[in-house]
Amino acid sequence: MTDDLLEEHDMPIPEGYQQLNWLRGFGRQIGPLYEKIDTEGAYVRAFLVEEHHTNGMGNCHGGMLMSFADMAFGHAVSIRLHRYWVTVRLLTDFVSGAKLGEWVEGTGVIVGEEDDFITVQGRIWCGDRTIMSGTGVFKALGERPAK
Amino acid sequence: MTDDLLEEHDMPIPEGYQQLNWLRGFGRQIGPLYEKIDTEGAYVRAFLVEEHHTNGMGNCHGGMLMSFADMAFGHAVSIRLHRYWVTVRLLTDFVSGAKLGEWVEGTGVIVGEEDDFITVQGRIWCGDRTIMSGTGVFKALGERPAK
Repeated sequence: MTDDLLEEHDMPIPEGYQQLNWLRGFGRQIGPLYEKIDTEGAYVRAFLVEEHHTNGMGNCHGGMLMSFADMAFGHAVSIRLHRYWVTVRLLTDFVSGAKLGEWVEGTGVIVGEEDDFITVQGRIWCGDRTIMSGTGVFKALGERPAK
Repeated sequence: MTDDLLEEHDMPIPEGYQQLNWLRGFGRQIGPLYEKIDTEGAYVRAFLVEEHHTNGMGNCHGGMLMSFADMAFGHAVSIRLHRYWVTVRLLTDFVSGAKLGEWVEGTGVIVGEEDDFITVQGRIWCGDRTIMSGTGVFKALGERPAK
């Protein structure tokens, strides 16, 4: 049924986005997620709110927004350090809701780096509307293998 | 494929737990979740870490733990007020990891109530090990229909 849902939507994905190729685990389960990288190395991650992301009121579930925040904010660490990382602490403020069918985008900026602990401020939005703001502390682990 | 996964595990569910009957949306997508209610009205929610909850390192994904925190901490509001609610702010501290196949439990306790804003302190654990501690602020909305 998940596979059916993933294939159902035919909204055109905004220009510049590539689907993340997550074939296993939680990333696949809550996907699909998308990413856009600009020439300066800045990135935006995104997803379309589908039925399997919704709460009982038909809006995007808070758990999905937090999961997306973890992936959208933490990715700043992957880009800066090219190392694996774990989340140590995440604070998320729910500013507004995202509705079924809306395109949700998010990114993060590193604001602190002390030993192996990296602090990232992030924001999630739909168009002009901020959905969530937050701060994550991530701990860098070992090097990722070269691609 | 999700349906297959949900039926695959045959670990016996610990005594006293009932599976939550979430047939739609994000709750279904990241499930199954379980709940145990004692005679005093205290509750524990739980899930078994399955493949569709894991990160790239084979442990429970931080997004799944935060989603579960939202559902496990926020449920204190449903029990106290029998009203719908939304999450306003959630702070989660990742204390330890949960491995594939582990039984994860969590609950929350209301520590503040001001107008329609309810503050809940929560904890998530596997056996004797704390996995996550956190604090949620939830806003109560309209009454839930009587069952």
